[in-house]
Order: sequence, then structure tokens, then C-alpha cells
Amino acid sequence: MNRIDPKVQECIDRCLACYSACLSTAMGHCLETGGKHTEPAHFRLMMACAEICRTAAHFMLVGTRHHRHVCAECAEICAECATDCERIGEMQDCVEACRRCAESCRLMAA
Amino acid sequence: MNRIDPKVQECIDRCLACYSACLSTAMGHCLETGGKHTEPAHFRLMMACAEICRTAAHFMLVGTRHHRHVCAECAEICAECATDCERIGEMQDCVEACRRCAESCRLMAA
Amino acid sequence: MNRIDPKVQECIDRCLACYSACLSTAMGHCLETGGKHTEPAHFRLMMACAEICRTAAHFMLVGTRHHRHVCAECAEICAECATDCERIGEMQDCVEACRRCAESCRLMAA
Amino acid sequence: MNRIDPKVQECIDRCLACYSACLSTAMGHCLETGGKHTEPAHFRLMMACAEICRTAAHFMLVGTRHHRHVCAECAEICAECATDCERIGEMQDCVEACRRCAESCRLMAA
Repeated sequence: MNRIDPKVQECIDRCLACYSACLSTAMGHCLETGGKHTEPAHFRLMMACAEICRTAAHFMLVGTRHHRHVCAECAEICAECATDCERIGEMQDCVEACRRCAESCRLMAA
Repeated sequence: MNRIDPKVQECIDRCLACYSACLSTAMGHCLETGGKHTEPAHFRLMMACAEICRTAAHFMLVGTRHHRHVCAECAEICAECATDCERIGEMQDCVEACRRCAESCRLMAA
Repeated sequence: MNRIDPKVQECIDRCLACYSACLSTAMGHCLETGGKHTEPAHFRLMMACAEICRTAAHFMLVGTRHHRHVCAECAEICAECATDCERIGEMQDCVEACRRCAESCRLMAA
Repeated sequence: MNRIDPKVQECIDRCLACYSACLSTAMGHCLETGGKHTEPAHFRLMMACAEICRTAAHFMLVGTRHHRHVCAECAEICAECATDCERIGEMQDCVEACRRCAESCRLMAA
């Protein structure tokens, strides 16, 4: 069996946790609460964040060196999503998942 | 924040673990070892397994009742992938991830 | 080069067209219009439809016989999504993409 | 209904065509031919190319301005994949799909 480097594994785990948090929060809390939570720009940002996290994890699992650029983009979108979720409020789990993922992706991108 | 039911959360976790195991094993161990590991039918089954696990997790995160049928299909493909990985050998992590995922998806499908 | 059977290719094309229509309509028209368009059950159905179409296309491209069950589920979700989009109105492109995809997926599932 | 800008629509179409070509060629022609076609670095590059094309299309359909960076990365990976498929040979459809996608993604990234 191949063993994934522990640093990479941690980043994959954080990407999949952030994907899960953003998607389930958007589809649950945001749709049910409405108002600021379904503002198009905010909602699209959450969906873009879920997708780039899913893709960054995929690139690390495929084992291509191109994961660096995808992780750099992932770090940027996660940081923006954390700030926007904090502005709107009531999404602390999402904010934390985004920050942990951004931190880990920045290390992978370096 | 919405809270996902612990049973559903466990199934999501096992789906994402099985997706990760199948994709990283196919792209790492299988491609590097070759021979039986890159037999088209085996390799495609691993890729189909990775994809259905990713999709089953997605459906549970979206929170649609259609996750039942997707989980039923996921359980079937995971069981078949476990058997095929065991036949070829050297992929015990993958076998176990497939079995745990199949077990959990069968409960969700019931 | 492998050649994909024309019947399968048509189904892939319709799946990707339906994925595109559902995702872009949900993220554009639905979020901007709000009201009935962002009712949680309707919006989640559109997202589930986009995802199963994407996955059905993926299975046909991977070339696994498991595409049959995924296409059967895709046909069912697309038919339901078409009916729901028609009920809410102003989404005729989406209704038609869903119906064309459902028709083609039913043939693949048979 | 929202209308997608024709330039963006063309890029989405080329991304989905390149995703389809890379995935079906890898899973069909490459696995069946073996040899250079299943060299790990080549095969992973084809899988990375399929995934980034799928994600770039997704970002344009979501309608987030972050599609620019994803399209820039997509153009780079597609160009590299075209060159590698040409080096190995017998994958002209894939080479052309990659080049058309790279060209369109470069315009979106600018």
C-alpha cells in the first residue's frame, strides 16, 4: 500500500471537512434561514468553496504536483468564505472549517 | 447551525474515507505496481467506487431523500470492489474502507 | 482511440447539458429571484439533479456496467426535477433539459 | 431564465468536452493499451486534467468570479496534457480537446 505523507493527509482531511461544512451549511442552515443567508454572492461563495475543497483533496489523492496551485486557490477562497460567513453570523462551524483548511492549504502551496 | 444526524454523519465519513482509499490506491499503488492492478475491469471498478462514494456523501450533505437509492448503489459497488481488491491482494486498507462504507450505506438505504 | 457508442454518447451529452442547466439556473435565476425559487425542497432537488447527472456522465465515461443503476436513478430524479421546475415556473430550459436527460437515461438503464 | 454569456458558454462546452475526452481515453484506450499509456506520471496527468476541466466548468456555472484562477490553472494543465498525449501518440482527439480547452480558458483567465 502507498502511504500518504502525514502533512498531505492532514490537508486532505481539512479539505474534506471544509467541503462538508460549507455544503451542508448552505443546503441546511442557509436555505432554511433565508435573508442574508441566500444573498446570491454569499451563497455562490459557499458553493465555490465547497467545490474547490473537494477538488484540492482530489488532486492530493491523485498525487499530481499540480495540487500546489489548486491548494493556493483553495486557501484564498476559504479565507474569503470564512470572512463572509463571519460577517453574516451563525455559521461558526463553517468559519472554523474554512480557517483550518486555508491554513493547511497555504502550507501545501508553498 | 444545522446538525447532521450522527448515523448520517458516520456514513458520510465512511464514504469519504472509502473515496480517499480507492482513489489514492488506484493512482498510487495500482499504477506503480501494474500487472493485475491495472487490469481494465479492476481499475475501472476502483474508479467507479471512488466516484459513487463521493456522490453518496454529496447527497447526504445536500440533505435530499434521494440519498437512499444512491447509498444502495454505493453499498453494492463497495462490496464488489472489496471482493476484487481482496482477489488481487496487497490492498487491505482499501478492502476495509470498502466494507465499512458498504455496511453503513446499507443502513442508510434501508 | 476508443470510440464511445453513439447511444451512450448521446446520453452523456444530455446528462452534461442537464447538469449545466440545473446548476446555472439554481445559482443564477433561483438565487436572484428568491421566493418559491429558494424553497429548500425545490433548491435541494435541483442540486441533487445536477449532481446525479454529473455522476451518470462520469460512469458512462469510465465505462463501467454500473452505469445502469446510476442512469436509472438519474432518470427518476430528472423527471421529478422537471415536474417541480414546471410547477414553480419560469424555468422552461431546465424542464426541457431534465426531460431529455430522463428519456435518454431510461434507455441506458433498461 | 439567466442567460450565460456566449464566450463563457463556449469555455464551459470546451471544458466539458476535454473532461470527457481525457476521462474516456484514460479509462478506455490507455488501460487497454498499457505500456507508456499507463505510466504513472502520464496517467495521473490525464486524471488531473479531467478533474480541473470539470471544476472549471462548475465554477463558470456557479457564476463566481473565482473562475478566473481556476481557468488559468486549467489552461496550464490542459497544455501540458496535450503535449504529453502527443509524445505518447494515438490520442489525437484528446490532444485537440485539450488545446481547444486551453485556448478558451486562457481567454477567461485574462
